[in-house]
Amino acid sequence: MADCVFCGIVAGRIPGYVVLDHPDAVGFLDARPVFKGHVLVVPREHIETLLDLPTERLGGFFAQVQRVARAIPEALGATGTFVASNNKVSQSVPHLHFHIVPRTKGDGLRGFMWPRRTYADEAEAESYRSRIAAALDRVAEESR
Amino acid sequence: MADCVFCGIVAGRIPGYVVLDHPDAVGFLDARPVFKGHVLVVPREHIETLLDLPTERLGGFFAQVQRVARAIPEALGATGTFVASNNKVSQSVPHLHFHIVPRTKGDGLRGFMWPRRTYADEAEAESYRSRIAAALDRVAEESR
Repeated sequence: MADCVFCGIVAGRIPGYVVLDHPDAVGFLDARPVFKGHVLVVPREHIETLLDLPTERLGGFFAQVQRVARAIPEALGATGTFVASNNKVSQSVPHLHFHIVPRTKGDGLRGFMWPRRTYADEAEAESYRSRIAAALDRVAEESR
Repeated sequence: MADCVFCGIVAGRIPGYVVLDHPDAVGFLDARPVFKGHVLVVPREHIETLLDLPTERLGGFFAQVQRVARAIPEALGATGTFVASNNKVSQSVPHLHFHIVPRTKGDGLRGFMWPRRTYADEAEAESYRSRIAAALDRVAEESR
């Protein structure tokens, strides 16, 4: 897509600090990292969100996400990683990208884990459970 | 694993609000959700982190992550989702789990996107790029 910055980086039209150039995915430094060494992994084509990535390409794409998540701690002496993607809401660029952020205990990232809520009671939890389970049945039927 | 709470939920030994029971993955409500309807998707076996999931199973596992990310907005009237996993650091249960959190614009989740840092200069960014790229080459050689 002509005006997509990530398509531009993949095509080499826009400068980027590219760490990975693979048929299934391209990886480059996030220009404003959560921690330095924060990489974005994107499909080469303009695919908008995780939901739009064809099923048969999930394995190839996530093999590259996994590979970057393995390389970052090794490269930077980090302990682990945070792997995340925003779908539509808070998604700054409408081209699927997985963030892989180096993590070390005590680095101060509280992450998205806070604050947490609680269900009012068992009936409320069950109502969420049953609605999501019913939607999952519909999703399965659609993809048949 | 006998003392793993997620293995217990998969096996039915520990109660959980299960939304998905599939050969490739099990999904259930997080007991302390970021937002209500927050689901965890886990492999049935005790696999510790994303790095430990065998390559040939990535496609099957992420097909279920994708399916849950499709179902949650439909079930709850949300706009999008946040899909994330902590590898080692901040990982509360050492059994691979992807969080799928319903998101709606204005819901107040700043997410992990804040605060952001900047690289001091191009040389610093290039040093991070080259170290990660070199580690990626080593990862590729190992998996041959």
